Amino acid sequence: MRTKDKNKMTAIRQATLRLAREQGIQNLSMAKIAKQAHVSPATLYIYYPDQKAMFSQIYLEVKDIIDGDLYHEVDRQAPVRVQFEALMLNYAHTTLSHPDETNFMQAVQQNPSLVSEAAFQKGQQRGAYLEALYQRGVAEQLLQALPLPIVVAHTFQPLAYLVQTATQTQTALPDKWLKQSIQMSWNALRV
Amino acid sequence: MRTKDKNKMTAIRQATLRLAREQGIQNLSMAKIAKQAHVSPATLYIYYPDQKAMFSQIYLEVKDIIDGDLYHEVDRQAPVRVQFEALMLNYAHTTLSHPDETNFMQAVQQNPSLVSEAAFQKGQQRGAYLEALYQRGVAEQLLQALPLPIVVAHTFQPLAYLVQTATQTQTALPDKWLKQSIQMSWNALRV
Repeated sequence: MRTKDKNKMTAIRQATLRLAREQGIQNLSMAKIAKQAHVSPATLYIYYPDQKAMFSQIYLEVKDIIDGDLYHEVDRQAPVRVQFEALMLNYAHTTLSHPDETNFMQAVQQNPSLVSEAAFQKGQQRGAYLEALYQRGVAEQLLQALPLPIVVAHTFQPLAYLVQTATQTQTALPDKWLKQSIQMSWNALRV
Repeated sequence: MRTKDKNKMTAIRQATLRLAREQGIQNLSMAKIAKQAHVSPATLYIYYPDQKAMFSQIYLEVKDIIDGDLYHEVDRQAPVRVQFEALMLNYAHTTLSHPDETNFMQAVQQNPSLVSEAAFQKGQQRGAYLEALYQRGVAEQLLQALPLPIVVAHTFQPLAYLVQTATQTQTALPDKWLKQSIQMSWNALRV
């Protein structure tokens, strides 16, 4: 793909992420996105056959950013608790530095029908290692065996709330708070 | 106030809550709300001078519904843990049965500038008893002394996520899950 095309696709993605934050993902249209990205609607349709295809592609790109950082400098041979703490801290830092991407990712996860089933499944698969880590914790009798939505509710959700509040009020989120919250998630899950 | 007026105000509130869920609170306008409520824009302005005044009033009505149920059958002399569990379970049940009201309340809490400062402060005051209960738990050396956003992140947020997921996917949320999640919140907070 030529550089020019890549630039256009980046502009389209940025426009989509920005509008999704400002207006809510359910209120976007191809016309609005084209206008914000300074391309013609016809150009938009060169890259994407429809809005669902576009959202699917952007969702996977955004998941690459967030999930790609998740395992940064995490030793996959380390004890479960060490890996858990490192992963959670990476998640907090990445979402803090990518608020629009995080907002888009969460909006899709709340409304999976916005993207193709294939894209959603592919996005979910990337969480497989994290789920395996949790199951290892259960097998080692460190963590309770719980339904996955409850695990998510007590791990990613508290961090996501702290990040979102800090982003919206434009206040700093001290690393001490993040580490405290991660300890509390561990205490919630542990046997 | 005459019954007819009350009916109109109820219709306006229902229209606002519904549109806020469907389109996002930041995308509402007085014109849209009047149309959805089947009243003329002029009628809307008889009751409310502007959108902020209307949102402020609706916010306090919605807080009355959610917070009013919070203390239902809670013995304020009971041990901290018993009260905590009862309050959290009431919160889960009320938000499950009032998804539109809960969505509106959370949207305002994420964007306090949507309502008047007086209304927001009044809404916050109603959480004072809950905060006092938490402080009692700290004083009794049962709970950790933590910044309030972290407390909220590990108590209301996990429940809110489970309720939201169940509402959006239209699946049942077993009481067993709710009770499990509430135990986990206690474990996260406790010393």
